[in-house]
Amino acid sequence: MRPVVRLPGLTEKTSLAIPQYSCITRYTASFFSASPTNVYPMAPKRKRADMTEATFASPAMLDDYPSVKAYRLLEPGPVVLVSTLDTSQDEPKPNLMTIGFHMVIQHEDPPLFGVVIGPWDHSYAALKKTKECVIAVPTVDLMEKVVDIGNCSGEDVDKFEKFGLTPLKANRVGAPLVRECMANFECKVEDTKLVGKYNVWLLKVVRGWIDSEKRNQKTFHHKGDGTFVLDGETIDLQERMTKWKEYQD
Amino acid sequence: MRPVVRLPGLTEKTSLAIPQYSCITRYTASFFSASPTNVYPMAPKRKRADMTEATFASPAMLDDYPSVKAYRLLEPGPVVLVSTLDTSQDEPKPNLMTIGFHMVIQHEDPPLFGVVIGPWDHSYAALKKTKECVIAVPTVDLMEKVVDIGNCSGEDVDKFEKFGLTPLKANRVGAPLVRECMANFECKVEDTKLVGKYNVWLLKVVRGWIDSEKRNQKTFHHKGDGTFVLDGETIDLQERMTKWKEYQD
Repeated sequence: MRPVVRLPGLTEKTSLAIPQYSCITRYTASFFSASPTNVYPMAPKRKRADMTEATFASPAMLDDYPSVKAYRLLEPGPVVLVSTLDTSQDEPKPNLMTIGFHMVIQHEDPPLFGVVIGPWDHSYAALKKTKECVIAVPTVDLMEKVVDIGNCSGEDVDKFEKFGLTPLKANRVGAPLVRECMANFECKVEDTKLVGKYNVWLLKVVRGWIDSEKRNQKTFHHKGDGTFVLDGETIDLQERMTKWKEYQD
Repeated sequence: MRPVVRLPGLTEKTSLAIPQYSCITRYTASFFSASPTNVYPMAPKRKRADMTEATFASPAMLDDYPSVKAYRLLEPGPVVLVSTLDTSQDEPKPNLMTIGFHMVIQHEDPPLFGVVIGPWDHSYAALKKTKECVIAVPTVDLMEKVVDIGNCSGEDVDKFEKFGLTPLKANRVGAPLVRECMANFECKVEDTKLVGKYNVWLLKVVRGWIDSEKRNQKTFHHKGDGTFVLDGETIDLQERMTKWKEYQD
């Protein structure tokens, strides 16, 4: 059974059940509704009147997932979505892209993740401006949507709307979480030294979320040529990992 | 049936059949036997008399694999081995390590790959000195060995010998290929800007090799906690990859 999505400002009695997650079709985001940690350092100052007031729905149906354990979902190399928020227009506009060029860089202090996003990607400008994004881990039920998201541009379409995906309000960044994904990691850009030459962004994971109902679903991996390999059998070799016991809790 | 391994200098008539690949137990490498492209730019000058003359066996049983297609094996995020050659002593010593923190950065011009290797890894010093390594992609038949390779140090053991793996002579780098792996990619360090702070090395893939008999075997992915997920079903979504047709040949 799908959990009930509660829109902000609605009491429990009047909360909306959204079984397909896709009936929140219009949304706008205001970064004035953000908490102090959620301000874009590079965003131009705007008057409140310029901004629409509606916001992304709350992620109340997701569970916290420690950002220091993000590597457990990212190291195996699944295809991921990157969510950004384009704040260059009066109405902030969320976008999505699909990537397979990414890696874990550091487990903790802080947890670091690397991604390749280039100027040919529509999300590049928003990432460059806001220095924030969300890395979302989809499972195989979303595979065709995820591929299609990677084959159109946010310049032409509203991808959340087109693909029936639900943006949820993140806690530490302006970019929305993707409700339908198994996990979401809120990220802030940590280092841009390799962006100019190689389009490599270093991201610090600042908050994690998981949909516990999807926790054990299969992720999928791009074989680089438009074919994808699904997760198969899981093998436990923890007893052999004698040097790395601290990463088994 | 296993292919016959021919040691250099032996004619076809006297070539050795090495069904388990593990009977070449002693090997030494001389970088004076290397081709001009195979000289370590940072290696100290030595007299030829200091060096042992034997070399790694030829990779004649492997097929060429275009380095510009390395992303097809690396993007899915398999656990890989990194082979290096420690040239700090009179007798060059090959070593192996296991990593899951890696990504494809660029398809071509040149093909680029990123890895995390830190000073806590014994291979770090050899990589720093020689600026070369081999990235080898193991399949599930090697899974336990690969995990054990990641849980001991080249400071204490000769990993090729301990794990019955066969070093083969690479073409463009001094570090040996790993005969038992499905694919081997010879790499030269392209950029070290992020090494000091994040231990991120950018590697240029300069030559690829494949064992065609292993081409379709499963690779495996680390879930970060000592459990591993094997490749499962492959799904062809090439028709949906409308933006990236050039990567489907």
